[in-house]
This record gives sequence, C-alpha cells and structure tokens, in this order.
Amino acid sequence: MFVVDAHRLAREVGLGGRINTIMQTCFFELAGLLPREEALARIRESVRRSYARSGEDTVRRNLAAVDAALSHLHEVRIPDRATSPRSRLPVVPAEAPDFVQRVTAAMLAGHGDDLPVSAFPVDGTWPVGTSRWEKRGIARELPVWEPALCIQCNKCALLCPHAAIRAKVVPPEALEGAPEGFRTTAYEGRDFRGWSYALQVAPDDCTGCALCVAVCPAHDKQEPSRKALRMEPAAALREGERPNWDFFLGLPDPPRETVRLDVKGSQWLEPLFEFSGACSGCGETPYLKLLTQLFGDRLLVANATGCSSIFGGNLPTTPWCANREGRGPAWSNSLFEDNAEFGFGFRLAVDSLAGQAAQLLVRLSPHVGEALARAILETEARSEAEVAAQRERVAELKRRLRGAELPEARRLERIADWLVRKTVWIVGGDGWAYDIGFGGLDHVLSTGRDVNVLVLDTEVYSNTGGQQSKATPLGAAAKFAVTGKRTPKKDLGLMAMSYGHVYVAQVALGAKDAQTVRALVEAETYRGPSLVIAYCPCVAHGYELVHGTEQQKLAVDSGIWPLYRFDPRRAEAGQPPLVLDSPAPRVPVEGFLRREGRFRAVGEAGPEAARRFVEATRKIVERRAAILQHLAKLSVASPPTRGSVERPGRVRAGA
Amino acid sequence: MFVVDAHRLAREVGLGGRINTIMQTCFFELAGLLPREEALARIRESVRRSYARSGEDTVRRNLAAVDAALSHLHEVRIPDRATSPRSRLPVVPAEAPDFVQRVTAAMLAGHGDDLPVSAFPVDGTWPVGTSRWEKRGIARELPVWEPALCIQCNKCALLCPHAAIRAKVVPPEALEGAPEGFRTTAYEGRDFRGWSYALQVAPDDCTGCALCVAVCPAHDKQEPSRKALRMEPAAALREGERPNWDFFLGLPDPPRETVRLDVKGSQWLEPLFEFSGACSGCGETPYLKLLTQLFGDRLLVANATGCSSIFGGNLPTTPWCANREGRGPAWSNSLFEDNAEFGFGFRLAVDSLAGQAAQLLVRLSPHVGEALARAILETEARSEAEVAAQRERVAELKRRLRGAELPEARRLERIADWLVRKTVWIVGGDGWAYDIGFGGLDHVLSTGRDVNVLVLDTEVYSNTGGQQSKATPLGAAAKFAVTGKRTPKKDLGLMAMSYGHVYVAQVALGAKDAQTVRALVEAETYRGPSLVIAYCPCVAHGYELVHGTEQQKLAVDSGIWPLYRFDPRRAEAGQPPLVLDSPAPRVPVEGFLRREGRFRAVGEAGPEAARRFVEATRKIVERRAAILQHLAKLSVASPPTRGSVERPGRVRAGA
Repeated sequence: MFVVDAHRLAREVGLGGRINTIMQTCFFELAGLLPREEALARIRESVRRSYARSGEDTVRRNLAAVDAALSHLHEVRIPDRATSPRSRLPVVPAEAPDFVQRVTAAMLAGHGDDLPVSAFPVDGTWPVGTSRWEKRGIARELPVWEPALCIQCNKCALLCPHAAIRAKVVPPEALEGAPEGFRTTAYEGRDFRGWSYALQVAPDDCTGCALCVAVCPAHDKQEPSRKALRMEPAAALREGERPNWDFFLGLPDPPRETVRLDVKGSQWLEPLFEFSGACSGCGETPYLKLLTQLFGDRLLVANATGCSSIFGGNLPTTPWCANREGRGPAWSNSLFEDNAEFGFGFRLAVDSLAGQAAQLLVRLSPHVGEALARAILETEARSEAEVAAQRERVAELKRRLRGAELPEARRLERIADWLVRKTVWIVGGDGWAYDIGFGGLDHVLSTGRDVNVLVLDTEVYSNTGGQQSKATPLGAAAKFAVTGKRTPKKDLGLMAMSYGHVYVAQVALGAKDAQTVRALVEAETYRGPSLVIAYCPCVAHGYELVHGTEQQKLAVDSGIWPLYRFDPRRAEAGQPPLVLDSPAPRVPVEGFLRREGRFRAVGEAGPEAARRFVEATRKIVERRAAILQHLAKLSVASPPTRGSVERPGRVRAGA
Repeated sequence: MFVVDAHRLAREVGLGGRINTIMQTCFFELAGLLPREEALARIRESVRRSYARSGEDTVRRNLAAVDAALSHLHEVRIPDRATSPRSRLPVVPAEAPDFVQRVTAAMLAGHGDDLPVSAFPVDGTWPVGTSRWEKRGIARELPVWEPALCIQCNKCALLCPHAAIRAKVVPPEALEGAPEGFRTTAYEGRDFRGWSYALQVAPDDCTGCALCVAVCPAHDKQEPSRKALRMEPAAALREGERPNWDFFLGLPDPPRETVRLDVKGSQWLEPLFEFSGACSGCGETPYLKLLTQLFGDRLLVANATGCSSIFGGNLPTTPWCANREGRGPAWSNSLFEDNAEFGFGFRLAVDSLAGQAAQLLVRLSPHVGEALARAILETEARSEAEVAAQRERVAELKRRLRGAELPEARRLERIADWLVRKTVWIVGGDGWAYDIGFGGLDHVLSTGRDVNVLVLDTEVYSNTGGQQSKATPLGAAAKFAVTGKRTPKKDLGLMAMSYGHVYVAQVALGAKDAQTVRALVEAETYRGPSLVIAYCPCVAHGYELVHGTEQQKLAVDSGIWPLYRFDPRRAEAGQPPLVLDSPAPRVPVEGFLRREGRFRAVGEAGPEAARRFVEATRKIVERRAAILQHLAKLSVASPPTRGSVERPGRVRAGA
C-alpha cells in the first residue's frame, strides 16, 4: 500500500485543491506501464499542452507538482496482524433510531445484500431524514464564525448547499445550559428584540465547499480580507463543535406564522432537506432546501430523474426529513419522461381527498358546528398565518368528530388533514424540463391547475454524464457537442408565457436572493400553474464551485441569465404581467465565459473562432434583452377560462 | 330485403342530404323492438327535443320525414335464382396495371386474406397512385362547368379536397382528337397567349362535396345565383364525362420551371395526391395536394398517425402518386409520438447521401469535367428553374460517368440523383403537433436543420374519434370536454417563434389562398426549420363541409384564426420578422361560433353560459390580436449560430 498527501503537496506548489497532476504521476510510477523517465517526460509534455491556455504560471505549478510528486509517495508495509488498540467507530451513532441501526447502517457498511426482505417497510415508503446519521466528516476545512463582524444577513445559511450552516434567533432563556464553546451575539433586528443570534456549523456534515465564506458580505473595516466567516482546518474544530451543534438543534424555532418570508426570515425556518450526497458546492440543493423552509410540511414533491432524484433519494440515506412534529414533505421520483404528469397526479389526488373531506364536512356540519365547518370550508389559506389557523380548526374538528358515532365521522377523521392546503412542486433538471419531459410539462402547464414547477437548470445533463440539452448555451462543450453547442439555449420561460395563465419566473439565488425568495412565494400563492427556472452552477461547468455565486452575478449582469417574473395576477390588475428584475446587460459577456471550462473548447479552435463565439453570445444576449424589454411593455388581460377555474386550494362545499 | 330512397325523401321534405331521421324510423319498423305506434311517438319526441335549438322549421321538416318514411320503405323479394342478363363490373378496369389486378383488386373485393405472402413487394415499398383505379363513383351530383361565366381563377381546382376537378392550359394543337363533349375556352391570361383553358371533372372520383361550387367567385351578372360551376345529378353526366376525363389526363402540362408559384399557377402543376378516402369535403387534403403541386417529386413526407396517415396510406389503395416520368413524393408513416424525429431522419439521410455524392464528385471531377462538377456543387437550387437546371446537369454527369471505368464512378452513378435538392416535409394533425408529438417537434425545430412542418389543424383528434387536444379552442365540445373545453387553444406558433430561427406561418386556404401558397413556398425555400399551421375544417366541427371556406373566412375576419408569417430572413434584413396577413378582428365572433355544432354544447347550459362563452372568446381574440400586433413591431436580429449553419440544401465539396 502506498500513500501520498496530495492535497498538502498541491497546496504547497500553489495548485489549491487540484491534485490530478500529482495523482497521475503517482499512478504511472506504481502501475509501471512505462519506464519512469519516459512516463515523467510524457506527463510534463501533457501538462505543457493542457495548461498552455491557462497561462505560464499554471504550467509552472503543475510541473513543480510532477517533480515533487514521487518524493511524497510512501509505501506502508502492512504487518501480519493488527496491533492497534483502537477500533473502528460504529457506522452510525448509538442514538440513531432502530431502523437506521438495523437497515441503514448495514447498507452503509456495504452489507445490504445480507438484509432479509422482512427488514424493509412493507408498503414501499422509506424512513426519511437519515442522511443526518451518516456523519461523513468529509470537510478538510470548516467555516469559523466571527460574531463581532457578522451582520446577521443569513446569506451563508441560505446559500449553503448542505444545510450545514444554520442561523437561529432565540430568547435568552433558551440558552441556559449551553455548552461552554457555544457562541451567540445580540440579535440586531427589530422583530425579535432582546433575543440572541446564533450561527452554527454541523461539523460532521459540512463538506467544506466554502460557499458560506464566499457569499459572506461582512468585512472587517480595518482589514477587509477578514470576513465574518473563514475556513480553518477541520481536524482541530470537529470535536469541539459537536456538542454545540447538538445544542443548537435543540433550540426552539420561532412559530412559522411569525416569520417574514424573505431572505433573512426564511433562514429562521427549519430546513427539511439536509446533508444530501450532492457534489460539494452544488448549485441545485440550496433551492430545494429553501423550498422546504418556505413551505414546510405542506410540500409534496414530484422529482424527475436526474441529480436531484439521486441525491434526493440516495439509498441508503435520504436528505428529506421531518420537522419536530414528525411531519415533512412527501417526496417521490418517477421517470425522466413523465415527471410533470406524475406531479399533476399528486394535484388531482390532493384535490380529490380535499373534495371528499369537504363533502363529508358539509354533511356533518350539524354535528360539528356550522360555524367551524364554514370557517374551514371558506378559508383561502394562502399565508402561513391562515394555514396555521386552518390547522387549528382541523385539529378542533377532529376533536369534535371523536365524539360522533356516525361512520362518516370516522371517515372524515381519517381525511380531515387534507382540508389544510397542500402545495405541489414538480422538480427536475433541464434535461427533464427542456427535453425529455417537455411534452408533459407543457401539457400540465396548459391545464391551468395549481401546480408549481421548479427547474434546476444546470444547462446540461449533469447526472448522466454531461450531455448537451436544449438548455445548453451556444458554444458550451458537452457530450454530443464536444466542440461547443451550435444553437442557442431554448427559451423555456418565453414558451410558458405564451399561455398567459402560467406564472413564470427566472431566478438565480446567488445573484439576487431576494428575487428568488419572492418568486418562489409568488409561484406558490398563485392559483394556477407556475414555472420557476433556477440557474444552478454545476461541476460540469468546469470551475471551482466556491465561485458559483460570483458566476451567477456575472451571468445576470452580462445579460446571459436575465431575471424576471411574469405574473398573470398583474395582468388582472391592468399592468403588464412581465417585470424584469435584472438591468440591461452592463458587463461584457467575456467576463462570464472565460471563467468556465465548458466554454474553453471553442477557444481551442483558434482566436478567430473564440472571437466569433463571444460575438455570437453578445448578439444572443442583446436579442433576448430586446425581446424581454419589448414584452415587459405589453399590457394584456390574462386569457379567460370558461366558467370559473377550479380552485383546488380552496375547498368548497360540494366541490 | 328492404329498400328506401332516403336521399330523395330527405330532399323532398327539405332536409338536404340528412337522412338520419328517415333511416332511424325505418330501422325501428324493421327491427320490431317496440310496437310501431310507440316507436313513432318516441322518435317524434326525440326529434322535438334534439332539434329544438335549430328552430321550428327544422323540427317540422324532420317530423315530416318521420311521417313519410314508412311509405317509402319497400320490400324486395329475392328470387330463387338470378335471372338478370347483366353481370357485375370488374373491381378495377382492364387497363389497370398488373399489381392492381392481382393484389389491389383482390383486397378491394374483400379477398385479401386469400393472397399469398409472395404477392406482396419483398422490400415493404408499396405501389402508389392506386386510388385512381377504385372508381368509387360515390357522388350523387357532379359539378358542371359553364365556360362562358368562368374567370379562370383556378380556385375550384385549388380547394377541391379530392383532386377531382382540374384545370389545364394547353396549346391549340394538343386539342386535336378531343372527344365531342370536351369543353375548352380561350385562355385569358397573358402568360400562355393563344392557348386554351380546360376545366374537367373526374366523374368517378368526385365525391360531390360541392366545395368547388361554393368557392367559385364567377357569377352571371344578370342572374347572380348562376355561377360558372353548378351541381347536377351525376347519373346523367358520368358516362359522358369519362372520355373527357381520359382525354384531359393525356393533355400536356407546361414545364414546371415556366409556372409561377401562385394560386393560379399552382393549378397548372400536376397533383401527386388524388382521390383519397378522406371525408367528402375534407379540409386537410387540399393542403397536401397543393404541396405535391408546388414541390412535385422532390417531396419527402413523414406523416404522423392521424387522418392523414389513414387516407394517405389506406390499404389497399394510396392517393400519393407518381408523375409521367414515374417519379413522385416518397411517403411514410411512423408513430404518433415520433413523427418529427422520423422526418428529421429523412433530412439526415438526404444530407448524408448528398454529402457522399459531393465527395465522390470532387474526386471524380478530373474525369467528368471541372466546370460541370463545380456547377453541380455550387448551385443553390431554390427555384424551380434552378432545380430543372440541376437535374439536367446531373443527367449529363451520369452520361459522362457511364464512360468512366473507376469503381467510384459506379457508386456516384447510383447516388448522383441526391445532388438534386430534396424537400422534407413533416406532416400531421394537431393531436400530433400540439400534444403527443410536441416534445419531438420542439426538439427538431430547435436543431436549426432544414425541415418543413405542416400541421393540419382540425383543433381536435379527428381520426381517433374527436378527443380534445391542446389545439381545441375554449368552449368547443370534444371527448374529455363534453361540456366544452375549459382552457384556450395553445399558441403553437408563438412557441415556435420563441426560437427566432424558425419560419412560422399560420394559414387558412379557404380564407386567403394566396397567403397559403406564399407561406408554403417561403417555408420551403427557407434554409432552416419551418412550421406552417393550417386551419382545416373537419366533420368533427359539426356543420356541412360545403360551408368550410365561408367558415374559414369568418374565423379569420373575427380574429379567431389570425394569419401571419414570421420569417427570420426579414430579421436578417433589419425588418420585424413577424408580418400579420389578416386585419384586426372586424366581425363578431358569434357569427363564426353559432354555425358550428362543436360550440353548441355551451349554449345548452343556458343563455347566461352562452353569453359568457362568447364574451370569453372575444377576450381571447382581442388578447391574441394585441400580442401579435405588439410582436409585429419588434425588430430584432435572428439568433446567431456558432460558425455557419449547415446548409444541407447546398452540397459543398467535402461536406
């Protein structure tokens, strides 16, 4: 067995986290495919060719890595028998629940094949919230909080792809019994006066992507490179932070109905999506986490095949979880080609159950009280406060039903919870939404029913290995388009707007977080189909994802990713339905393009090709901006529908 | 056996061609399900209920039909043996080709099961142009031409769904040996001075739909109800017209390259789609026939499942046929869900073969002559004259190749015809284009390749029995929407325009024929994907199809079916790509809606519902007009593509 501390060497020669050149050199040394000197010569030649475009400095650093690699490679002789007094830690901690101990742990340990069929749930449902027992501890560095510099904006928690850094605002009495190292500071907002603010890292769940540091806007005025968050080696921190994390989890959350659904407020709400197996720095997961914070346990998610179905339902553990009351989002994944239809079925099922409950309630209203029945049937429940009030009414209804002897009372007891409004979200990537599932997505949008669609747009088939999709921009290299895609990105938002009755938004969390939060809330409260297209940085884009938020800002500012919201409710009010949320292009597209590996293939065809590519992208950007600006001036009524549109969110008597 | 001359009785009581009430009465009489008086009473009651909305007059006529039906029902006693000296006519005429005699005739006679497998072509291709041997003779009336009133506009021939009335312009010498009854008149155009004009009906192939008469704009000034065409009983005409038709078919056609591709000129071109089994008065077939006239034997058609695949490939006969040289369109039908992809494959195959031929030609140019090779490789062949010139060059190439001994010359000889530009058309109904095949259609349009899409939009799944599609307008009754569709028609054209590189037109042949012809020619010559959405009256709309052109005019004038052309070439020239070809709505929508049975279901829900429906339709029309007018003001460049777009029509050396 041989070992090499490649990360350390990479840091030393100035390659940051990139260890590929070092590992390649070691591989050829150990594999013995070529004589050592020939192998080294060829690797050096390959380094010069591969990194020429990235500049002399990069070439020099990589050559230094090649030179030093073999002196860092050490053989470890394996003794005949183990002599260490230490033994391996258990796969999951002792406090993990029974199912996790019996089933999840066995699968994590690689013994899944030994599990009997009887170990699995009989109805196909799978216990959720199990990613928290993995305790992968893969971060080499963890963020460290500097309360004195913090401005309490909660952007770190919002952008964290793994729900591994969280903020809370708590009353003073909640802090009794805090571990010694647990840090808080006085909360500065007007809403929770006199409370404390805590920011806490999950030391075993953080992946060390450092996006929280990158997005942190709080600087030391004397020393601007000092931020309220900085990365420090994990080994020295992990042990000390564990009790802090456990204590943090036990702190109370403010009641949902008291929280404002904005960037800061959303982070007081418990995430019900945590510690997924997505790539470190993933651009998709923050949107999903935010959905669970905004809409909590009322969420039903139909997930298309793709990255989000893999990290969302990644046996043996699942990142979707339940809140303290044991309630959480319902989640399932169907096929690539039918996810919109699958989620549409959720909507029909919810409406059918709510309709049945409403009919029973009408019949039983003499027994349970006319006033209560009427209040339940007439609520709109569009705000968190209304939802909370409806929950209380339904709880009261169930109490009153308990006394009734009628068989219909038993039935209503079982389905009364459906009288609380649910929110159906259809989630998937661009491969699903723009390509394989587009026919079904278009059909579901056409129906006018109240479903919400979230497209996690990485502009490429990420999970299946980087094939081009119709969302891939012109010039980006992808499988089936290795020299760069020849046609521009399809305009899915414009197509959906053609219906007039569809709420459509294009968002980029890292560029304008407030607009993202607003769009998701507007989509959810709109009584009809909604489509939110979300820009997601991805490892397939070819850059370190710690720069994901900067790239999102450049995409928006250059006009490559315009932000907008098309809301049919504005048309009803006599205003243009389309509102642009980003300015006209104000920085050159080159700034965005040259930072991403996916666009470099075009440059390899020579400077003339690169120039034409930049020019073409600029024209696409100008054209799209002109179209959106023109449409934003158009004030037309929303298309009428025959009779009143069904409003499944509002349960009506006899519906 | 019983017989009833129901058509005669229907005419006598003023029911026109509607025999359902008469046949129903006879059925109950013969079936004996109910005592006669009870059956009659119930039929009368049903008549009063069913026709109440159509007015007292209709009720009265139908009741008269019930009263008279049984006195027109006669029993025919079948004798023990046949005594007539006449025998049945052969299934197909004696001059039909061998395959038709052996195979088609057997299938037409209902003896297809007796045919051995060896009777069928081994490679799956099927002889075309066989509908002409059916000689169905189903018309009860035939159009009669009045040359003195005729203005030679050719609209009758253009609109005829069955290619059963045709116009020709011929030099005087061609008329030698004409049958006695063959009628011509002096041609009045400037293009073929001194020639004669002939209009001829195919007496055994006409279905008697009378659309030719309906569309005829030529009136007698003294007696305006007299037109240049009128319907007369077929029995007295058929025998006399047969030799005229045969003589007409033998007359020469003007060379394609001398013909102007406009409404009148298109009808000098031989239709290669004739006598299909489509419904009498079908609104789809005139578009297909026109395609074959405009683009002739260069046409490759991928046909989606639907009416057009059934009447287009309706065993045992096919309406698609070859020209005098034995060349005709290639046609095939794949599935409902993949037709755009299927036709896209045609494009790829054509480009591959043309590319191979071009490469061989480059290599062989020293043998066949540099000048000829260059001329062949550099032609654009966008006009009929250029195509004709290319055909001659390729013929010359093949002559020169015959002398060459090289194996490559043999290969080029076999594939040289692919150097003449082909035109790929992807054809289907709205069920395919808006619904089941939309995902694939969108994908093919996105590629930027040179395919042409013709959507035969009947606004309903016609062939499968009248289910609603996303093309069905709000309020129209269809299966799955029996009380009228709740959402407006999807705007397929607007969606395709979102690409910017797609030519998009919306047409209605019966409303503005010149715009249809222009759109088809523009689509064909555009070097990229084209989408032409064609309004097609259909029996499923619930009115007599002889009124199909009037309804198309009302649809256009009321704004229900706006006409437009979106041409990316105009954007390249700095003009707005979208041009509106119909005026702002200028007649009320009610005029259109009340004439079609599909919209009557809404009225059955009461006058208030009907009023709301008309109001909703009016709003949809105003909204759509406002959007189109707004977009017609937008002047943006077409989206660029990386490098030069492939131009498969133009074969380039080494392509």
